[in-house]
Amino acid sequence: MRADIQFIHRPSPGWKADGKVFVVIDVLRATTTIIEALSHGCTEVIPVVTVDEAFSLAKRLPRRDTLVGGEEGGLKVKGFDLGNSPREYTRDFVSGKRVILTTTNGTKALHSVADCEHVFVASFTNAHGVVQRCSNLNADPVIVPAGMKGRFSLEDVVCGGMLIDLLEKEGFAVTDGARASRILYKAFARNLVEMARTCEHGRELIRLGFEEDLAFCVQTNVSSCVPVFKKGSVTLD
Amino acid sequence: MRADIQFIHRPSPGWKADGKVFVVIDVLRATTTIIEALSHGCTEVIPVVTVDEAFSLAKRLPRRDTLVGGEEGGLKVKGFDLGNSPREYTRDFVSGKRVILTTTNGTKALHSVADCEHVFVASFTNAHGVVQRCSNLNADPVIVPAGMKGRFSLEDVVCGGMLIDLLEKEGFAVTDGARASRILYKAFARNLVEMARTCEHGRELIRLGFEEDLAFCVQTNVSSCVPVFKKGSVTLD
Repeated sequence: MRADIQFIHRPSPGWKADGKVFVVIDVLRATTTIIEALSHGCTEVIPVVTVDEAFSLAKRLPRRDTLVGGEEGGLKVKGFDLGNSPREYTRDFVSGKRVILTTTNGTKALHSVADCEHVFVASFTNAHGVVQRCSNLNADPVIVPAGMKGRFSLEDVVCGGMLIDLLEKEGFAVTDGARASRILYKAFARNLVEMARTCEHGRELIRLGFEEDLAFCVQTNVSSCVPVFKKGSVTLD
Repeated sequence: MRADIQFIHRPSPGWKADGKVFVVIDVLRATTTIIEALSHGCTEVIPVVTVDEAFSLAKRLPRRDTLVGGEEGGLKVKGFDLGNSPREYTRDFVSGKRVILTTTNGTKALHSVADCEHVFVASFTNAHGVVQRCSNLNADPVIVPAGMKGRFSLEDVVCGGMLIDLLEKEGFAVTDGARASRILYKAFARNLVEMARTCEHGRELIRLGFEEDLAFCVQTNVSSCVPVFKKGSVTLD
């Protein structure tokens, strides 16, 4: 088995070959938020691509057990129940509820692999659990960093490099790209908070008032949840 | 001025904005070969995308001062005068001659920026010269690693990281992607030959019998030539 990473997520023909497991990462903040929500008893997260889709789907589902969350331009959308800060997704709010989520990069990245057999949702918080699940499958892992509007996102690639580092320890071979992401992870592993604070996306979140999310999103190995994306819904299986 | 790098060269809408200078890198071996040819008195290199185009263009140009070079599957094409090894492009062969060149990745990468105002051809061998030329332009450098059939190529990104390192020393700001490529360069700077020998593309070239090309292609600062790609032709201006 050989692990690969897409440095920039711009799907090209043939990339979704059989025998692969896709691992979608949007550290700041969509996948960290999804992991947090499901850890706190949320029944499912339904990622959608646009704000309109989110409102439209919410109308068709029972209001009682449905929340709408996410961001546009980093900020909570008017009329949504929740923004995209993982710290909002507490047990009090989300336990027993379904969350419809739309974000600028993460939910789009999930939809780009919506038709694939195996899709895991990862971040720093659950990296170890995701690697264990990958090890149990007879498939080549492909790390999919969500990026920033089609551009390189350092925090997602560094997190991908952490997964690659763990996969190598489990005996996976790696591509040159995966090897490069592991080098980037090792360069920042001692100070992931500083990495998050200085990367382009982190600086934008600080500007928007979400500085506290940064340290939260780079905690490692604090969740054993491995969310699975299948048939349009993210659950814990 | 801010320097960026495309980790994987898959052009997307809007990437060729004005005010940018594109620096195309195919260390193994097309851009190293172009630099070597022009260093040795070749009058111009005309990059073309396919073998058929190469033969077809050669027929329309005077045979006396035209050579056809390049590779398919790494190997010299039957009927070509030269392969894609920079070591073939000696003064005896290329001085005073025009070279039509076709390769799997490098000439395609050049053609993807064929309509841009400023395009430089770079490799380890002429990195310092390219950075000086970039410094003299009022433009944001965009490093374009040729990649391997649309996939990540370690050697091109590491070379891009060397350029970024030099650009930073000249006072350029850098994107997160550029910053990451500089980290990768620093990780391999002490042993570029080993990097070239262990990367996917290098291993393939060793298999094909071109092991000597690897050390040749990672020599740094041995050429002051800065080839410019304009109107379909690469020259020294």
